[in-house]
Amino acid sequence: MTSVPDVIQTWQMVQPWTRDKETGTQTPGRLERTSIRMPELHPGEVLVEIAGCGVCHTDLGYFYDAVPTVSTPPLTLGHEISGRVVAGEKSWIGKEVIIPAVMPCNDCAICAAGRGNRCLNQKMPGNSLGIYGGFSSHIPVPATDLCVVKDRGDMPLEQLAVVADAVTTPYQAVTRADLQAGDRVVVVGAAGGVGTYVVQIAKALGAGTVIGIDLKQEKLERALQYGADFVIHSANKDVKEVRNEFRALCKEHGLPSNFGWKIFEVTGAKAGQEISLALLSFVGKLIWIGFSADVNEYSLSRLMAFDAEIIGTWGCLPKHYPAALQMVLDGRIQIEPFVEIRPMSTIRETFEEAHTGKLTKRIVLTPDF
Amino acid sequence: MTSVPDVIQTWQMVQPWTRDKETGTQTPGRLERTSIRMPELHPGEVLVEIAGCGVCHTDLGYFYDAVPTVSTPPLTLGHEISGRVVAGEKSWIGKEVIIPAVMPCNDCAICAAGRGNRCLNQKMPGNSLGIYGGFSSHIPVPATDLCVVKDRGDMPLEQLAVVADAVTTPYQAVTRADLQAGDRVVVVGAAGGVGTYVVQIAKALGAGTVIGIDLKQEKLERALQYGADFVIHSANKDVKEVRNEFRALCKEHGLPSNFGWKIFEVTGAKAGQEISLALLSFVGKLIWIGFSADVNEYSLSRLMAFDAEIIGTWGCLPKHYPAALQMVLDGRIQIEPFVEIRPMSTIRETFEEAHTGKLTKRIVLTPDF
Repeated sequence: MTSVPDVIQTWQMVQPWTRDKETGTQTPGRLERTSIRMPELHPGEVLVEIAGCGVCHTDLGYFYDAVPTVSTPPLTLGHEISGRVVAGEKSWIGKEVIIPAVMPCNDCAICAAGRGNRCLNQKMPGNSLGIYGGFSSHIPVPATDLCVVKDRGDMPLEQLAVVADAVTTPYQAVTRADLQAGDRVVVVGAAGGVGTYVVQIAKALGAGTVIGIDLKQEKLERALQYGADFVIHSANKDVKEVRNEFRALCKEHGLPSNFGWKIFEVTGAKAGQEISLALLSFVGKLIWIGFSADVNEYSLSRLMAFDAEIIGTWGCLPKHYPAALQMVLDGRIQIEPFVEIRPMSTIRETFEEAHTGKLTKRIVLTPDF
Repeated sequence: MTSVPDVIQTWQMVQPWTRDKETGTQTPGRLERTSIRMPELHPGEVLVEIAGCGVCHTDLGYFYDAVPTVSTPPLTLGHEISGRVVAGEKSWIGKEVIIPAVMPCNDCAICAAGRGNRCLNQKMPGNSLGIYGGFSSHIPVPATDLCVVKDRGDMPLEQLAVVADAVTTPYQAVTRADLQAGDRVVVVGAAGGVGTYVVQIAKALGAGTVIGIDLKQEKLERALQYGADFVIHSANKDVKEVRNEFRALCKEHGLPSNFGWKIFEVTGAKAGQEISLALLSFVGKLIWIGFSADVNEYSLSRLMAFDAEIIGTWGCLPKHYPAALQMVLDGRIQIEPFVEIRPMSTIRETFEEAHTGKLTKRIVLTPDF
């Protein structure tokens, strides 16, 4: 049995990157290694010894792009966590778990309506769970919604950290899209950290055709090995060119191009959003997963003419975690080719590499305090 | 038994209103009384002797605003039709019917997916059903999807014409919104010809709160008698003022203003659209019924942050007509206060009055050839 230390070792975001509005002076953000007092656990809470925590674009948004965290810094970032319960509620001790990236309160009108993934009282490690986050040795969390990991064979527990967000957010999105066997799917941003899983999950759940669109040729070719039937390389092409290529591809393969497509916008970038909107057509669905502050220009009345819809999707209901995890464990979703494990002490360099777009895999940091 | 005449008497749109692109010269549209050869009925078709045909904004769009009809003029407009079957398939003869405004082919992939209201081969009287439309003595139509009128008591058959579009389009929209008992609803354009029925149907199906928003104070007060719990008069107010009034109303009545609202945009006008978008919030739905050519400026990523959606809705599946009709016949939907019957020979003046916004009720024209 693991002993519980007196303190939590952690990499705190002491301050985010800031830019003075008047002078324009930029102050780099700071991540500092420190230790914090081990908190007293309340009834219903457990302490998780962290196996791994994924580095997500959301973390980078907090650190580099002035996206405010709910808890005021200093706090520890990181919300994509796997680990083992080492203290707290007795029935949980010793269990390996994935911590849902957003944990609903389970006690409000939104939760009662089955929409707990957008509960307004939700707790998210590395954002709204006090000062606690995943780039640490341990984290205290409510036990209720933890996802138990069983029979993982030789899959490392730290690798499963990506189930907490990168896999489950797409899972929720595909569920929101009401994906049916035979559906025609487009994923804009198919080669990225989240898009990769949208492609795999859509295909695994029976999509008839999955077309991946992305800027990066090399990564797109990888997508062809993991669920995509066809790909469109969109770099240096305008929206019309991409749409024409999509139509030509449909024609070549005997698919209708003008109705019934479920399009997933995963890029959170204006160019990707414009492609997604241009491909939306009759009785189609556009599922909006990526986030940007951009204002879009679109005649929403087209949705009326198309009998179509745009669905925004946020996080994932904890109740879906076991199903998503099972798909990973039985190989229907491959995560190993898309994950790289690094020691947590590389956090500063890893953030910098992720921020400058140099990574081709999602990084999971393992505690090495 | 009614005899079948040799010809159909009709008011044809000989030409729509046009504007020469180069000279700017406007040519008024022309409606001409004429007669057309009685067509031979094909198997599966019936001839309906028209009782009444409603004048819809869609007709005005074709006539005044350069919206193209599928069949090239000359053709007869009018798609909101009730009447009696007088020839064709024997089992139908003598039945009183409502003709669905859009009739699916029932034989394509979209129809098979249950989305026949947006079937791309659909037939719509006064648009894509050859030259035939409702501003006539008779019309040949496929029998399959006709809605039979039974037990109408003393409700005039011609009045029931509005079930073909003004009542059923909102019915489909409320169905698409997945309205549940207790739901909080906003209708933007609540006092108009379609909004009136959105309000009534939402309330009749169990909405907990219905807030009507419109420009016209007098009509809004009528909405309070027909389903609206509260109203907001939006004339001469900007979007922020309307939103603040909405929030104050919520606060006063102990309702949350920031989540779970189902908002129906019925105006098809930019101002109404902007109000609708401004009120959309967490786990909300915006149902887009009105049409305009306007481009909207909106950060669609808010849908992701809100876990919210925008749903466009077109027409109504024929399978919903009997339920909508029943609500009219049993008084849950009141149509009489919102309908005025006029002889069809007033069509030119009626179009003009409707176009210039002078009408407070929907006009149903009855054949007087």
